[in-house]
Amino acid sequence: MFRVLPSPCLIACLSLLAAYAPWGNAELHAQSKRKPNIILIVADDLGYADIGVHGCKDIPTPHIDSIAKNGIRCTSGYVSGPYCSPTRAGLLTGRYQQRFGHEFNPGPPVDANKEKGLSLQEMTLAQFLRGLGYRTGMVGKWHLGHTPEFLPTARGFEEYFGFLGGANQYIGKRGNQPIYRGTKPVEEDEYLTDAFAREALAYIDKHKKEPFFLYLTFNAVHAPMQASEKYLKRFGSIQDETRRKYAAMLSAMDDAIGQVLAKLRETGIEDDTLIFFISDNGGPPVNASSNLPLRGWKASTWEGGVRVPFLVQWKGTLPAGKLYDEPVIQLDILPTVLAATGGKTSIINKIDGVDLLPYLSGKKAGAPHEALYWRFGAQMAIRMGDWKLVKARDPDTKGGLKKGELKLEGAQLFNLKDDIGETKDLSKKHPDKMKELTAAWQRWNEELAPPAWAAPAAAKNKDKKPQQH
Amino acid sequence: MFRVLPSPCLIACLSLLAAYAPWGNAELHAQSKRKPNIILIVADDLGYADIGVHGCKDIPTPHIDSIAKNGIRCTSGYVSGPYCSPTRAGLLTGRYQQRFGHEFNPGPPVDANKEKGLSLQEMTLAQFLRGLGYRTGMVGKWHLGHTPEFLPTARGFEEYFGFLGGANQYIGKRGNQPIYRGTKPVEEDEYLTDAFAREALAYIDKHKKEPFFLYLTFNAVHAPMQASEKYLKRFGSIQDETRRKYAAMLSAMDDAIGQVLAKLRETGIEDDTLIFFISDNGGPPVNASSNLPLRGWKASTWEGGVRVPFLVQWKGTLPAGKLYDEPVIQLDILPTVLAATGGKTSIINKIDGVDLLPYLSGKKAGAPHEALYWRFGAQMAIRMGDWKLVKARDPDTKGGLKKGELKLEGAQLFNLKDDIGETKDLSKKHPDKMKELTAAWQRWNEELAPPAWAAPAAAKNKDKKPQQH
Repeated sequence: MFRVLPSPCLIACLSLLAAYAPWGNAELHAQSKRKPNIILIVADDLGYADIGVHGCKDIPTPHIDSIAKNGIRCTSGYVSGPYCSPTRAGLLTGRYQQRFGHEFNPGPPVDANKEKGLSLQEMTLAQFLRGLGYRTGMVGKWHLGHTPEFLPTARGFEEYFGFLGGANQYIGKRGNQPIYRGTKPVEEDEYLTDAFAREALAYIDKHKKEPFFLYLTFNAVHAPMQASEKYLKRFGSIQDETRRKYAAMLSAMDDAIGQVLAKLRETGIEDDTLIFFISDNGGPPVNASSNLPLRGWKASTWEGGVRVPFLVQWKGTLPAGKLYDEPVIQLDILPTVLAATGGKTSIINKIDGVDLLPYLSGKKAGAPHEALYWRFGAQMAIRMGDWKLVKARDPDTKGGLKKGELKLEGAQLFNLKDDIGETKDLSKKHPDKMKELTAAWQRWNEELAPPAWAAPAAAKNKDKKPQQH
Repeated sequence: MFRVLPSPCLIACLSLLAAYAPWGNAELHAQSKRKPNIILIVADDLGYADIGVHGCKDIPTPHIDSIAKNGIRCTSGYVSGPYCSPTRAGLLTGRYQQRFGHEFNPGPPVDANKEKGLSLQEMTLAQFLRGLGYRTGMVGKWHLGHTPEFLPTARGFEEYFGFLGGANQYIGKRGNQPIYRGTKPVEEDEYLTDAFAREALAYIDKHKKEPFFLYLTFNAVHAPMQASEKYLKRFGSIQDETRRKYAAMLSAMDDAIGQVLAKLRETGIEDDTLIFFISDNGGPPVNASSNLPLRGWKASTWEGGVRVPFLVQWKGTLPAGKLYDEPVIQLDILPTVLAATGGKTSIINKIDGVDLLPYLSGKKAGAPHEALYWRFGAQMAIRMGDWKLVKARDPDTKGGLKKGELKLEGAQLFNLKDDIGETKDLSKKHPDKMKELTAAWQRWNEELAPPAWAAPAAAKNKDKKPQQH
C-alpha cells in the first residue's frame, strides 16, 4: 500500500505562514467567552498512517480528517508510552506516568487485592475540570484500574458508560469484561463502537447548555477483530481478511466521530468546543494497521510505537487546516485544556505537559519542549530537535533486549528530519549528540519511580511475522 | 458553673444593625482581589458552652474568641451529624452525608477489606480547590477511612500530617494509630496539639505566597484526657480532675490557634485569609465538656449534640464582631468557600449547603435554609424557623429508642426561641406544626441512602452519670 506524508519542507512553509496568520486569540477566548466544552477522543491501536490526512488510501476517514481540516494536525504528535494504560495515565495527569510507577499495563483483575490502577495521589483532568465547574462524562475504555477506588466515577467522572479493562468483545458474550453504566454492569447488545456513539450523543444532548468535558475512548481498532456487516460490506475490495475487518472497525469509529461532530453543529456549540483526537499508541502487527513510513509497532519506542495521529480543533479560536510540526505529546492536553478553561497548572507537582494554545495559534514560536522522553522496561528513547536516541524492540528480532533490563549501551542515534524511518544509525558519526542526548535522558530518568507493577507477559501472536499493511 | 448566652433579642437587634452596615463586598472581593487562602479549623468534641464568647468562665479561649471578634459568630451554627466522621463527610462534600450512606463512624481498621471511608464518588473540598489552582494541605485527624484509597492524599490533599482514625494518644505510645506524613507513618514525640500547631505554621510559611487551603483538624478536646504540664499548671484552681485536663487540652488548642493567627499577621496575609472555626459535634459526657444551656450530648440529635461553636473571619471583607442568628450548618462551608474562590456549586449533584457570604455580609436577608435535618440511626430532628421536631437519645434514659429502629411516633416539638433547652414538648399543643415538620422531614428522608455500614457499638463510659460542667 501507498502512504504519503507531507514533506518537511511543505510543513515548514505552512508553519511559517501560520505564524503570521491572524490567529492567536485563544487566551482571549478563554477569558471572554463562555468556557469551551472539551471533547477528548482517543482511538485504540490506530496506526499512524491509517487516516486519510496521513495518506491512507484504502480506508476513508472523512470525519477524523475533518478535525484536521477544521483545526490543526500535529505531524509530530506523540504519546508518552507505547502501550494503552500508561498512555492514558499520562493523558489524564499531564505527567510522565513513570513518575508515579505507571510504566506498564496493570494486570487483569484476577486477584482483587492485587489490582492496580492510576495512582490515587494523582488528580485527573476530570477532577480538575469538576473543580472548575464542568460537567464530566466518560464513554469508552478506561484501562486505569478495575477495583472501586479506581473506577472513572471515583476519579472525577460524574457519568460513565464503557468497560474497565484493556480490550473487549465488540459483539456477543463479554465474559469478565462487562459494560458498566456508572458503577453497575449493564446489558449491551449493540456493536460496541455504535453503542459508544449513541452514548456520546446522549451525553452532549444532556449537557449542551453547560460547559462539559466528554472523554470518548473507543476500543476501536484494538483486537479482537470484529466488525458488523454494515461496515464490512464497505470494504469488499480489501483482500487481506484482517485488514478488511480493521477497515470496517475504523470506518465504524469514523462514522461515530462524524455523528459527534454533527451533533455539535446541530446544537450550535461547535465553536464552543475544543476537540482533541489521538491514538493511545501506534498500531500493532496483530490488527493489520500501518505505521508507515515509521519504524516499529505498538509496544516499542520506535516512532511507530509512540508517534500517533494528533488533531486539535477549536473553530473560530484556533486556525483551520494548519499543520504544526514541532513535537508535541499527549501530556500537553491537560495543561492546554486548563489554559482554555481558566485552570491553573502551577498547582501540579512536576507537570510535564505544556499549554499548546499559544503555539497552535501561532502566537509563540519555537518548540514547546526541549526534549521528549520515553522509558518502557528495557526500551528507551529521547527526541531533542530532529535527533532521536533510541533503544527499542522489534517484534521479530526483539532488538537483543532482555526483559526488564535497561542498558543504554547499544542505543542508536537517528536524525528524523532526513530519516523518519529510523534506518541510519548515526551514533558513531555524532558522538557529541550521543553524549548530549544520553545525559539529558539520564537526568530525566533519575526523576522517575520504579515500575509499580511488573511488565505484562509477552504479547500474543508473537510468532506471526509482522507486516505493515 | 455559669454560662451566658446572648439573648435572642440582643441577637436580633445586632443582626438588624448589621444588615444596614456598609458590608457586603464579599462577592466583589472574590472577583477583584487575589483569591483568599482558606483555613478551616475543626475542634473535636468541644462543648457549645466552652469558649469565652459563649460564656465560658473557667477556661480562657482568647484566640478562638478573637475569630468571633474579628469576624462573625453564628449563634445557631450546626453540624449535620452528632458524631465525628459523619460530620466531616458532610463538611468536605457540602452534602448531607446520609445521601451517600455515611451515617455512622466507619469501623476501626480490623479487616482491611471491610474498611470504609468517605464515598469515592464524592468530590472533596480539597479536590475542588485543587481544580481552582489552590495548594491544599491537611494537618490533624482525618477519620474518613484508613485504606490507601481513602487517605487524605488520595482525596485532594497534596500534603498531610496527622492520624487517620477517630482518636489518638496525645503523648506516648500510639499503638495502631500512627502519625502519618503523607502516606508514611512517622515518629512524633511532641504533645500532639503542639505538633499540629508546628505543622500548621510550617505549612503557612511554605505556601504564604500562593492561595492555599489548610484543613486543620485538632483531636483536642476528644478523649483520651491527656494534657502536658505546660497547660495543666494553668488550671490549678479547677477541682474536677477531668475538667482540669479538659481545660488544659482546650487551652493548648487555643494557643495553637493563636499561633496560626499570629503567623497570618506576621506574613501579611491576614486580610487575604478566610477562616472558619467549628466543632465536629457537641461535647460528650466523658470529657467533662459543657453544652449548657443546650440539652443533650454528642451522639444525640438534641441541640447539645449538633449545635456547635461556628465562627467565620475574613478581615476587610466580612464584618467584624457581628452576631448571626439564622441557622447555618457546616455543609454551608464548601459552597461558601467555592463562592469566595471563584468555584461553581452548580456542578454538585444535590448540594445541601448554601453560600453564606451574602448573608454574613448583610447583603441578603432571611434565612439561608428553609429547614435543617438530622438522621442518626433511631434518632432524628428537623429545625424549621424556631421550631424543632426531635426524637433523640439521652445517655441516661436512652430516650426509649431501640438501636437502628427509626419511628417518628413519640417525637417531640420544641420552640427554640423560648425554650433553647428543649424542655417543653409542644407536640400536643401544635399539631399543625407537628404535621408540617414531620412531612418536611419525611420528604428529606426519602432522598437518603441506607447507612453504608453499621452503627458503632455503644459508647464507652455509658454507666457514668453524665453531668454538664
